[in-house]
Amino acid sequence: MNFSSDNVSGVAPEIMAALVAANEGAAMPYGDDAITRRLEARFAEVFETEVVMFPVATGSAANALALSVLSPPYGAIYCHPDAHINIDECGAPEFFTAGAKLVTLPGDHGKLSASTLETCLAGAGAGVVHHVQPAAVSLTQATEAGTVYSLEEVEAIAQITHHHGLPLHMDGARFANALVHLGCTPAEITWKAGVDVLSFGATKNGAMAAEAVLFFSKDAAQTFHFRRKRAGHLFSKMRFLSAQLEAYLEGDRWLTYATHSNHMAQLLAEGLKALPHAELCFPVQANELFVKLPDAVIDGLLASGFRFYRWAGGTIRLVTAFNTKPEDIAAFLEAARQHSKSLEPVEGAIALSV
Amino acid sequence: MNFSSDNVSGVAPEIMAALVAANEGAAMPYGDDAITRRLEARFAEVFETEVVMFPVATGSAANALALSVLSPPYGAIYCHPDAHINIDECGAPEFFTAGAKLVTLPGDHGKLSASTLETCLAGAGAGVVHHVQPAAVSLTQATEAGTVYSLEEVEAIAQITHHHGLPLHMDGARFANALVHLGCTPAEITWKAGVDVLSFGATKNGAMAAEAVLFFSKDAAQTFHFRRKRAGHLFSKMRFLSAQLEAYLEGDRWLTYATHSNHMAQLLAEGLKALPHAELCFPVQANELFVKLPDAVIDGLLASGFRFYRWAGGTIRLVTAFNTKPEDIAAFLEAARQHSKSLEPVEGAIALSV
Amino acid sequence: MNFSSDNVSGVAPEIMAALVAANEGAAMPYGDDAITRRLEARFAEVFETEVVMFPVATGSAANALALSVLSPPYGAIYCHPDAHINIDECGAPEFFTAGAKLVTLPGDHGKLSASTLETCLAGAGAGVVHHVQPAAVSLTQATEAGTVYSLEEVEAIAQITHHHGLPLHMDGARFANALVHLGCTPAEITWKAGVDVLSFGATKNGAMAAEAVLFFSKDAAQTFHFRRKRAGHLFSKMRFLSAQLEAYLEGDRWLTYATHSNHMAQLLAEGLKALPHAELCFPVQANELFVKLPDAVIDGLLASGFRFYRWAGGTIRLVTAFNTKPEDIAAFLEAARQHSKSLEPVEGAIALSV
Amino acid sequence: MNFSSDNVSGVAPEIMAALVAANEGAAMPYGDDAITRRLEARFAEVFETEVVMFPVATGSAANALALSVLSPPYGAIYCHPDAHINIDECGAPEFFTAGAKLVTLPGDHGKLSASTLETCLAGAGAGVVHHVQPAAVSLTQATEAGTVYSLEEVEAIAQITHHHGLPLHMDGARFANALVHLGCTPAEITWKAGVDVLSFGATKNGAMAAEAVLFFSKDAAQTFHFRRKRAGHLFSKMRFLSAQLEAYLEGDRWLTYATHSNHMAQLLAEGLKALPHAELCFPVQANELFVKLPDAVIDGLLASGFRFYRWAGGTIRLVTAFNTKPEDIAAFLEAARQHSKSLEPVEGAIALSV
Repeated sequence: MNFSSDNVSGVAPEIMAALVAANEGAAMPYGDDAITRRLEARFAEVFETEVVMFPVATGSAANALALSVLSPPYGAIYCHPDAHINIDECGAPEFFTAGAKLVTLPGDHGKLSASTLETCLAGAGAGVVHHVQPAAVSLTQATEAGTVYSLEEVEAIAQITHHHGLPLHMDGARFANALVHLGCTPAEITWKAGVDVLSFGATKNGAMAAEAVLFFSKDAAQTFHFRRKRAGHLFSKMRFLSAQLEAYLEGDRWLTYATHSNHMAQLLAEGLKALPHAELCFPVQANELFVKLPDAVIDGLLASGFRFYRWAGGTIRLVTAFNTKPEDIAAFLEAARQHSKSLEPVEGAIALSV
Repeated sequence: MNFSSDNVSGVAPEIMAALVAANEGAAMPYGDDAITRRLEARFAEVFETEVVMFPVATGSAANALALSVLSPPYGAIYCHPDAHINIDECGAPEFFTAGAKLVTLPGDHGKLSASTLETCLAGAGAGVVHHVQPAAVSLTQATEAGTVYSLEEVEAIAQITHHHGLPLHMDGARFANALVHLGCTPAEITWKAGVDVLSFGATKNGAMAAEAVLFFSKDAAQTFHFRRKRAGHLFSKMRFLSAQLEAYLEGDRWLTYATHSNHMAQLLAEGLKALPHAELCFPVQANELFVKLPDAVIDGLLASGFRFYRWAGGTIRLVTAFNTKPEDIAAFLEAARQHSKSLEPVEGAIALSV
Repeated sequence: MNFSSDNVSGVAPEIMAALVAANEGAAMPYGDDAITRRLEARFAEVFETEVVMFPVATGSAANALALSVLSPPYGAIYCHPDAHINIDECGAPEFFTAGAKLVTLPGDHGKLSASTLETCLAGAGAGVVHHVQPAAVSLTQATEAGTVYSLEEVEAIAQITHHHGLPLHMDGARFANALVHLGCTPAEITWKAGVDVLSFGATKNGAMAAEAVLFFSKDAAQTFHFRRKRAGHLFSKMRFLSAQLEAYLEGDRWLTYATHSNHMAQLLAEGLKALPHAELCFPVQANELFVKLPDAVIDGLLASGFRFYRWAGGTIRLVTAFNTKPEDIAAFLEAARQHSKSLEPVEGAIALSV
Repeated sequence: MNFSSDNVSGVAPEIMAALVAANEGAAMPYGDDAITRRLEARFAEVFETEVVMFPVATGSAANALALSVLSPPYGAIYCHPDAHINIDECGAPEFFTAGAKLVTLPGDHGKLSASTLETCLAGAGAGVVHHVQPAAVSLTQATEAGTVYSLEEVEAIAQITHHHGLPLHMDGARFANALVHLGCTPAEITWKAGVDVLSFGATKNGAMAAEAVLFFSKDAAQTFHFRRKRAGHLFSKMRFLSAQLEAYLEGDRWLTYATHSNHMAQLLAEGLKALPHAELCFPVQANELFVKLPDAVIDGLLASGFRFYRWAGGTIRLVTAFNTKPEDIAAFLEAARQHSKSLEPVEGAIALSV
């Protein structure tokens, strides 16, 4: 059983079926096909506003292309130190922007703090030729810590961002997971709260390889066409990207998938909380859990065949997906319990038992 | 009936079936899966030598990433003026290399000429600080004119290229079509002839979105991993790229597909030669035809519902694919004949009929 | 005696004196000094219009920075194949623009042809995502062939350039030489004729290392400040760049220097025309001559200690400067005559003498 | 009197004299002149080892070009958050490296800490495709805080840097000031301590605009020639850069200048320590002082015509130079004393006077 990442899961059956269906007949390439045309309209419905939409195949492409439209080469892009764009894309934003700088602003629970952002932007030296120039703010929803920005948090960040004349980008690789946690509409947590550009992820939630970059302002999108092509991210048989996204949105499947994976994460969290030696590092609000466990328990779980990422210092990451089975959760928790039993009792327990 | 491009065709059924099959169970991401591991070994068999292999999703990505490994930012990459890398990728090689220069060398039938290359390289100013530095040569096989370099032609170019200490890149977006025309082995027309890096195309010949960059030297491939990731071209669910390529190679399907499309192109060529007003611009050796036709005939064909690219001056491009039907060819030729009939007879015909 | 280039000459004495004078007292750095402030106003007088002016130290920096403001990374910059930006800057424009493409348009006597430009721009594929996008036109005045665009020629090119919505850049590394040849005002041959940005050269005409980038539109200059700093071309002790330019403009010294070097070039040209074996490749309109000479004469001149550039095929380049002495010209011509004497008489001469 | 920066001072008279002297006769361009040839040999003497030397005109160019040779586009360059390369060059390193990332490591007194560096490099993910790859370490000597790394500190950092297979770059914009503080040889604090590349500054210490990039390994320097040209930093009249550096080194003038400016800084520091309300932020080891002063004193000093940088929170920076006069220091201190007198006595003083 593999909790390494939501990308170890394959493709949701409805999305695979859509790919097979999209294979009928010839279709003009590069987005000039019926499915892609329908898709932009569909996104406009889902987000209750006009959008300019660009399908791409990977999250790194979505983020880096979006940022390359927002920042000049001498720009500063503000983000959390743990942001995917900062540490997990091998410098993709720097590449696509021709050398912009990612300026990191620490914050609790993987979130940018509005007050830290305000302090930073106030002293950023806009207009001073020696310094990179404030260009954009990027936040991740759900965050890399498995937490979710509230509506108020996004609004506060957006207000400061816009006050300084900058656009706000949202990396929504796990946007669906955040949305079902919040219980709000896609519009409310994006453009209504002040988000200007969204990397709308589907790959981690059941697609094969499909993300959409959504611009809520037509102007901002102007150069994207050329940048996407130039980066090798304009697919000739585009219909197969669009078909994934169409099937993903249809009948709110994307929310159904995310509801399931969030629920699985909650089951895991509850089970872990009941373990004497386990400690959750962050509130569990989406489909990622970061857990501190004794090394012996981690070793035991790995020996039992469970797969997950492990960091020095006894922290592991567990990720659930659209197709995680409740019995897998149960098996994991049972194994964790067994491996915990053989440990020394925790100190508090000793005190109690005395 | 659509002869616009081989990318208007969908996915070959065997490849789609492989995608469905690859969806079983979990698989580690980013290429650490069983299919990807098998695939590199399979390519080594097909090419009869060790290769370092990187699946990517688009031809532009394959070419630009390959060239970014070969050329420094101050490098010159020599290619034909009509090369896809020069005119159809919106500057992707310049982007990926951080500003290398594509130096174009004219040649007949879409081919680089060995003697022009030799003259150019001899005067290129290697080591002179004012000039961009010779870095790589790139040829397209089959060419953008629908022609195919012979073994001798590739060898002659490779010899000059290597004599000047440069690597030779082959853009093989239609590599299978070239290969079946030549009737040689993949090894013979690539590394045995002096090719160092191959963009091995599959998308235009029945895949959904899959190409492989093949390095015949391990050293050359060193930085590719990081450049691919940084460009957003490392797929998390890599198995689905690899599954396409595996199915493509299996049982020589790739050659079967290309044999068919080349054959369809020959049927078209023969039919067009028999038309009084049609003139083939280049020898038809792969699956692309460039044809001069009277405007009225072109207008007529478009009005009859046929789809193809048209340039000012009366030239059209026709492309056949793995799934082109003989009856489509027949229909096209019949329509062309009908539209030709209503024209003034050609001059030669007048002379004869008198 | 050294005719290799105008950059083998040192600094004009008035300019050196200005450097010494500028060294009095402290001055705020990075252009916030009195001389730099005066200089922009001075340029406005000289060009009879408001300008935004940026001193830099080299011609490559001036050109590449100017173009980086005009072209996006996916842009096409149109220029003559012999343009300095195309062949003598080791790819500087590609570097500063983050990968724009220089598209070369052949033309006689080192000049862009208006009709070739029109044809090219009409078919450049503006708006088509596969192609780099028309971004700017650049011409060199005086050209790399030592010729000078007439007012009418610049106007014709500017009209086409603007008709396609593009800005026109002029590389004026030898702008003074062109100006005195034309006998017009700086305004007439630049913004009045349609030039939007000028690289105003001084180094080749008596400065130590100083050029000015002049924007005739404020908007176009917006990002230059940051790009210059980011490229390491913002000098801390800026007053010493500005002092050179101020002294250069004072009392029309720049025109005096150029008048002299053009005159020396004319003396050379006239002397060479009188030689039986010499052939001027282009009209001599500025301070560069390209001459075909028999190899034995070239060998002889080199052996006599003259310095100049030599190309295979018997062409040499001779460049005069602000400080070239008439006696150096005389010595060169005399030596050329002597080395010619020992040659076989030319064919025409034979015929006459018979 | 201007303590804003050492770049508000002009050119040392001996260096200006050398510029005038270098103006005799013609000289081949681009470094092919006698002075430049002598200069590399002179640097080899000064540093007691073979060096590859490149004159450039600005410190940003020196640093960014040096780093562009050391880091691939997907590289990480480790430096202090206050490093000039990180905050004062508008992203020059990112530009020249085509997008490398500056990873900042906090440390006291403006210095990188060896232990922080070790921890960071140990966890940097070398070889992991998702992360930028460790490429180089850069330290500033003297630091941006006006402090100086000891021999032992440089050695400790170099050892860790080399242990991880990385080169060590030293930004020596104020190298002379550091050297005279340490009282060691140039060799000891650079290559003998493990420095691989040095940006050897002269501009801030009496030159007009001249720095030298020194490579202590020939291999590392290979691509510098092309990168410098491509960046517009290869001067045609190179002799005037080299003449500055030659004069700077002659008779240990550079050390004489720095000894003076360091001494002036010590006079300032001692005088300020004697003031009741002044607080030095860092040890004063070179020619920069960071001082906390009451706002009223700062206002008073500015009103009295003294010039320096001021930050919110009551900190000012004072910089001395090769030509700072002792009477200027005395005047500043006297003014500070006067402005302090009118203040409320400090708390400690109250206690004493009671």
